[in-house]
Amino acid sequence: MKKINKVLIANRGEIALRIIRSLKEIDVKTVAIYSEADRNALHVREADEAVLLGPPPSNQSYLLGDKIIEVCKDLKVDAIHPGYGFLSENANFARSVNSAGIIFIGPSPESIEVMGDKISAKNAVTKFDIPLVPGTKDAITDVEEAKKKAEDIGYPILIKASAGGGGKGMRIVESADDFESQMKLAVSEATSAFGDGSVFIEKFITSPRHIEIQILGDTHGNIVHLFERECSIQRRHQKVIEEAPSAVLTPEIREKMGQAAIGVAKACNYFGAGTVEFIVDDKLNFYFLEMNTRLQVEHPVTEMITGIDLVKEQVRIAEGNELPFKQEDLSINGHSLEVRVYAEDPKNNFLPDIGKLKSYRRPQGPGVRVDDGFEEGMDIPIYYDPMIAKLVTHAADREKAIERMIRAIDEYNITGIETTLGFCKYVLKHDAFTSGNFDTKFIDNHYTPDVLESELTDEEIELASAFAAKIMNENKKKSTEKTAGQNGNTISPWRKRNQQF
Amino acid sequence: MKKINKVLIANRGEIALRIIRSLKEIDVKTVAIYSEADRNALHVREADEAVLLGPPPSNQSYLLGDKIIEVCKDLKVDAIHPGYGFLSENANFARSVNSAGIIFIGPSPESIEVMGDKISAKNAVTKFDIPLVPGTKDAITDVEEAKKKAEDIGYPILIKASAGGGGKGMRIVESADDFESQMKLAVSEATSAFGDGSVFIEKFITSPRHIEIQILGDTHGNIVHLFERECSIQRRHQKVIEEAPSAVLTPEIREKMGQAAIGVAKACNYFGAGTVEFIVDDKLNFYFLEMNTRLQVEHPVTEMITGIDLVKEQVRIAEGNELPFKQEDLSINGHSLEVRVYAEDPKNNFLPDIGKLKSYRRPQGPGVRVDDGFEEGMDIPIYYDPMIAKLVTHAADREKAIERMIRAIDEYNITGIETTLGFCKYVLKHDAFTSGNFDTKFIDNHYTPDVLESELTDEEIELASAFAAKIMNENKKKSTEKTAGQNGNTISPWRKRNQQF
Repeated sequence: MKKINKVLIANRGEIALRIIRSLKEIDVKTVAIYSEADRNALHVREADEAVLLGPPPSNQSYLLGDKIIEVCKDLKVDAIHPGYGFLSENANFARSVNSAGIIFIGPSPESIEVMGDKISAKNAVTKFDIPLVPGTKDAITDVEEAKKKAEDIGYPILIKASAGGGGKGMRIVESADDFESQMKLAVSEATSAFGDGSVFIEKFITSPRHIEIQILGDTHGNIVHLFERECSIQRRHQKVIEEAPSAVLTPEIREKMGQAAIGVAKACNYFGAGTVEFIVDDKLNFYFLEMNTRLQVEHPVTEMITGIDLVKEQVRIAEGNELPFKQEDLSINGHSLEVRVYAEDPKNNFLPDIGKLKSYRRPQGPGVRVDDGFEEGMDIPIYYDPMIAKLVTHAADREKAIERMIRAIDEYNITGIETTLGFCKYVLKHDAFTSGNFDTKFIDNHYTPDVLESELTDEEIELASAFAAKIMNENKKKSTEKTAGQNGNTISPWRKRNQQF
Repeated sequence: MKKINKVLIANRGEIALRIIRSLKEIDVKTVAIYSEADRNALHVREADEAVLLGPPPSNQSYLLGDKIIEVCKDLKVDAIHPGYGFLSENANFARSVNSAGIIFIGPSPESIEVMGDKISAKNAVTKFDIPLVPGTKDAITDVEEAKKKAEDIGYPILIKASAGGGGKGMRIVESADDFESQMKLAVSEATSAFGDGSVFIEKFITSPRHIEIQILGDTHGNIVHLFERECSIQRRHQKVIEEAPSAVLTPEIREKMGQAAIGVAKACNYFGAGTVEFIVDDKLNFYFLEMNTRLQVEHPVTEMITGIDLVKEQVRIAEGNELPFKQEDLSINGHSLEVRVYAEDPKNNFLPDIGKLKSYRRPQGPGVRVDDGFEEGMDIPIYYDPMIAKLVTHAADREKAIERMIRAIDEYNITGIETTLGFCKYVLKHDAFTSGNFDTKFIDNHYTPDVLESELTDEEIELASAFAAKIMNENKKKSTEKTAGQNGNTISPWRKRNQQF
């Protein structure tokens, strides 16, 4: 047991700031590191001390593990919090930190290593009876053998090049009739792309949801789960809206998934905060995908429904304390949503749209939390992930959390750059989302950029409104039988007015 | 049952904005009113419509009930939310609103009337077996009779002029020995001040706490309580720090007080949100003080621990809906604190210190809520209550809610005017507060303005620190036996540094 008095946060942006806040609450001194591009960043301002590492490309600053350890020694830092990304899942870095006599706020290097590789992760969990997506264990080249396996697994199945990547040599097969032809195509594609024609056969999940379980383990062997986060709304295979709890899990499945996640953690002797990701099909069968051995971007929704500050627990665990609660002490309180506010243009394939935050006003009020790292007038640097903020709401139930989120999105004022806020609002109002009937293919199934085109600015509505009124008046003159109002398609004349009585 | 689609908020500042937020979440259109001093106020900007009422003195703007009703008719407003203060406890206004066919979001005019007068309130509750501060029912002039009464009640007692006010004719008597002399003084003081020498005798609560119970009642006779708020930390007899739950109530007393509060509400056929205030002594005896027939300033702490949005419930009740929960559905989740950020100078008797918010940065992060009505660069108008914001924190327990509040206070950046933030931080760190061992006399017992004098700015500490280092070096030269560091009184050399490695 070693009391941690001073922590270096080996990260930037919202997560660095969020970690600093929790550390301040427990009276731990904070050291920020920063690149030249982040000189004026909020995490630099809010930390007790701040050290410039180098120029912006991360390999010359935020990824300089040795330099970071040097800073720690010089400033008598007790522990490093790696946040997410950067060095957070780098087992060698964790090992060097430990060797330097500094506490790495995270799991052991061995846990990171085992879970860092998909094959070693799957091997590790097999002893613990964790459900995996049904499929062949070894690579196959023989068509007949492959076909037999496919029938055992049940169609639809996925043929995947064993040396694969980028979708090359990948085929979805709906029924046995198509198997041979598709297998041949996959093998020939794989051979020409990778010089290796062997393939794996795997069950294809038609309507997959991404649901993950937050776990916390201490160094005394106690592990609990903190329920799930639903992260199925994604763009470019990256999460953009998350929530807890999921709209579809039953208490029984939740508990089964929780126990499976604890099993995965046990399989790699895990301690600290971690996340076990599952793919869930439309019958609520769930299969282990991977484990992230660090804090997740979307951890706030779990904090909102459990009242547990995950960063503080990470520190307590790193100090060698036992978990202060048991599984039966934990319960779900209300519902929480997070939307990621990216500097991206949803009308242009979600391409980054970095630049200056010309105006920037955060929403406030009951049940609203904003984790960000920017202020009005600041630039979103080109060098890093273009996430501006995480907007989080909490309310008594899912419907109320959604209506609160829509209000908060409306209250958020960001000009100067395009953001994902409008897109997220579109999703939150969509029947598929409100009914809970969605999967990771939401964008493919329900979104085209033109659905956002109707989002006019106030000025545009004002103009259009005046124009509509003019047309209406002209129509009235022409005919008393039908006005523009009757077809139900006129633009709402609802406008703010300042009137002196 | 009438669906409310459009609400006029007959208020300003943080409470107007807070109400607008909840209304937006339930898709209700909002109309703001404002005085000339509030032209640029946030509640004006955030409402769907806004109407200028007149110049700043409130009797020419926010108190113009008839004009407000006129605005409602003109803009087809369904209901008025009065907030707190202004017209919120004006029974005649509520009556006029109802007569105009507009819904008053609050109780009936009759409930307001009964509870608006201390004597009628006490008369109303006697049937409901509500504990009142023990004392004489009628005025007394006879010394012997008075002394007998005093002995029945038990010392210490308070002698109060029946025509009294402003402390005139008021005497605290510790024991029977002093009674006659003090009674004579009180009677003569009262006679000369009010021409009426009759007095009341009342139990004197030596160490009083102010604890209130939030209640919600519907128009179908259902009433629940939402637990207590502890509001004992006051300055100038005005609350400045509130929390829920109280640090001292037992579950049994909490339930008894809750039931008493429901009794008070029943005594005046109450519906809507209301607060029953009690005085609590050091043996946890509680006595009914008064009922506030409106939303309280400090209502957020109740929202935080119950997850219930009180403004939304007010609207639902005003529509004629039944309460969506029963008493047994309600429970306390964690702990919440509110500090009121006033534009006041705690070093100068808490006198208002209005002016421009030169810089204004709100704290953020997990468990922090700021309800305010200002932005950087705005002026705090001289015409209104000088409250800038309500800073609210929520955490798993009281200790964590306090540490979070201290972090949030440190993160709050307000320059240009003095505020109560530093004072509140002093209170939150004081043993009397952290131990829960405090009463409404906290300031008298534990505060003198000079305790805040030590709060140096960063620049001052930097200067002092450099100076201390200089002295230390000089001392070292003079003697190797004793350095300034050894007396434990040197100024911490802890400073932020930006270092290039």
